[in-house]
Amino acid sequence: MTYSELNTPLRTIMTPGPVEVDPRVLRAMSTPILGQFDPAFTNIMNEVMDMLRKLFQTKNKWAFPVDGTSRSGVEALLCSIIEPGDKVLVPIFGRFGHLLTEICERYGADVHTMECRWGEVFQQETVIEEIKKVSPKVVAVVHGETSTGRMQPLEKIGAACREVDALLVVDAVASIAGAEVKVDEWCIDGIIAGTQKCLSVPAGMAPITYNERIEKVINSRKKVERGISTADDRQRESTMNRPMVKSNYFDVSMLQDYWSPRRLNHHTEATSMLFALREGLRIVLEEGLENRFKRHKFHETALTAGLEAMGLELFGDKANKLPTVTCVKVPGGVEADAVRSMLLEQFGIEIASSFGPLHGKIWRIGSMGFSCRQENILFVLSALEAVLVRHGVSIPTGKALQAALDVYTREKTEKPAPVASS
Amino acid sequence: MTYSELNTPLRTIMTPGPVEVDPRVLRAMSTPILGQFDPAFTNIMNEVMDMLRKLFQTKNKWAFPVDGTSRSGVEALLCSIIEPGDKVLVPIFGRFGHLLTEICERYGADVHTMECRWGEVFQQETVIEEIKKVSPKVVAVVHGETSTGRMQPLEKIGAACREVDALLVVDAVASIAGAEVKVDEWCIDGIIAGTQKCLSVPAGMAPITYNERIEKVINSRKKVERGISTADDRQRESTMNRPMVKSNYFDVSMLQDYWSPRRLNHHTEATSMLFALREGLRIVLEEGLENRFKRHKFHETALTAGLEAMGLELFGDKANKLPTVTCVKVPGGVEADAVRSMLLEQFGIEIASSFGPLHGKIWRIGSMGFSCRQENILFVLSALEAVLVRHGVSIPTGKALQAALDVYTREKTEKPAPVASS
Repeated sequence: MTYSELNTPLRTIMTPGPVEVDPRVLRAMSTPILGQFDPAFTNIMNEVMDMLRKLFQTKNKWAFPVDGTSRSGVEALLCSIIEPGDKVLVPIFGRFGHLLTEICERYGADVHTMECRWGEVFQQETVIEEIKKVSPKVVAVVHGETSTGRMQPLEKIGAACREVDALLVVDAVASIAGAEVKVDEWCIDGIIAGTQKCLSVPAGMAPITYNERIEKVINSRKKVERGISTADDRQRESTMNRPMVKSNYFDVSMLQDYWSPRRLNHHTEATSMLFALREGLRIVLEEGLENRFKRHKFHETALTAGLEAMGLELFGDKANKLPTVTCVKVPGGVEADAVRSMLLEQFGIEIASSFGPLHGKIWRIGSMGFSCRQENILFVLSALEAVLVRHGVSIPTGKALQAALDVYTREKTEKPAPVASS
Repeated sequence: MTYSELNTPLRTIMTPGPVEVDPRVLRAMSTPILGQFDPAFTNIMNEVMDMLRKLFQTKNKWAFPVDGTSRSGVEALLCSIIEPGDKVLVPIFGRFGHLLTEICERYGADVHTMECRWGEVFQQETVIEEIKKVSPKVVAVVHGETSTGRMQPLEKIGAACREVDALLVVDAVASIAGAEVKVDEWCIDGIIAGTQKCLSVPAGMAPITYNERIEKVINSRKKVERGISTADDRQRESTMNRPMVKSNYFDVSMLQDYWSPRRLNHHTEATSMLFALREGLRIVLEEGLENRFKRHKFHETALTAGLEAMGLELFGDKANKLPTVTCVKVPGGVEADAVRSMLLEQFGIEIASSFGPLHGKIWRIGSMGFSCRQENILFVLSALEAVLVRHGVSIPTGKALQAALDVYTREKTEKPAPVASS
């Protein structure tokens, strides 16, 4: 049996990730590779570290990608900090809070959770009270919860963590490069980003950054691989009194040595993905973080105006909506997945379902990164209207595009600069 | 500060990985992405599974990549099988045997090791005796040890494992697609490949396959993520009596659900890397496994003939040389890394050093996948000769290329078919 050349349809991808990749990023990936210790490559590694610091708005020394999809970064950071029995507090307001809990539990943490209804977030004061009560070693919290489309305010939580000497670890996979995330100003100790959402780079890397508070914990468990360690390394390790990190691949003390001037071999860096990440970051920094956040808000306004003009109801607490994900309640009597299938089959548009208790109850429309463009917003609105009509839903027709165009034309003068490459 | 466009030098990469990537693979990566549950994408996932079965010469149901660099596959397979206290036997004959040991130890295994001198391999009978003595749950062994350029014969070891009900897990990262690896015929229960070596795909994925013996162990620890599990899942889990796999990202029971028709969301598949892997596998299968193995042997013959004609001595036991990596002893008085630097700076050629006790003692020249081409072999020989002369080494000049050309012209008629895309 022979296999044909790769033939893929072109899609309009309006899910909360993976999203459309900027053509410049796709092109960067077709660059011939370099060896991992080639100075031309290690220079690129350093540039990426520098660009990541800007993305994260931090002066942290350590900022680099973990070679795996987003959750690999979450697991790397958590498992390198957590020792069996450590107290961790996780506020859960959607699927990914459960994931944080599960990862911590697997690594033996004593996890305290607090939950609120899916579609809401926590008052920061409520979280802070719980932090004082539990006095955990780590507070792990999601910033942008894609499963419910909510964004947890965080700016007061980091300071509260420092008061009880807890480390704040944040999953910003769905918000980074699409909404404000101020690592240093918010006193976030460690944070994880994803590539396949607002960065508009393919899935496969998880940029992280962490400060000296976390570095200290990590260094106290530092390990050098036996096959490449020196006598000095082994001497130091013989006096270590902390348990080894369970994972070798996710041992951040090893990743740190690889990303440091020592360049101690761990894995072989995912070359082409690093080229992609570099180009993706370059595009973000060319656009400028503030412009980029404004662009996401602007298109969100047009999208939600269109959806509401169509008579659809948005899901969740409006005050804490994640600007990059819009959750829409599925009208009564409509089979949610049938609508999504028709969107894909007839229009080549992909929107998302949700998970667990929300599956079939809401649709999730992403407006992230390169996918977050006027033509995509207008196309998804027109297509959704047509498909809903086709499914017998009684909605006002012709209103959605007008409402979105109102936003696009009314705010023309305030419209953010276009994406560099579009 | 602004960052320039990605500008990379073109290199001749003759290391044991990462190696040059076939232009067809680079091109495949610039294909616009698809959503992870798009039928067009899940169809590609299934095709890749099918092609991996052919690569591994297996009828196993499960064959898919782990989204991480090679060692992520090693860790995923081992940590999904190993429970704390499990006996594991690791025969060590280089750096990567130490890595297997370390990974097993981190996950709480009771690891029994046997070691031989770097540069040699084990008699299979010696390993089989030890298996009978230790009676481990798992035997974990490297097939192609890149650090020493040796290949461990395995064809009898799998059968011996079955006699004591042990599972045989093999690291074939450096040999797969470059030398014979017969998963079913050799009774290998689980095996890990890498992309960045003889597959000539960038680093970032680790294809694995495993049989029903391993699936049974994995299923006994099967877990569904809380945020997406059904009442049925939770009911089943409540009766489980095995400890959870420590890692979420590497929990193969979850990866399995994602790669199964259930398509249960775990990570977001690394889209562009999967496109790359598909094209890389397609090229391998077009060339044909037997042709490909012959091609690697053929160029190895030319390379080693050239090196010996230059008066250099090869390192290690000749009978068990890994055909894809050639280790050369550094002549006395020569600074090994200075030679490598001059090769890179003056010729744009990269060869490798080795690790631990062999660092500075040997050079390693890879001849893998797309890098394994006549012009590369001839170029590295001519460059190495010139650089050694420049470093004051007294060697016969002008002989190396003649010896290699003897091989290339003498064996012209037996020369394997060229690579599809070259």
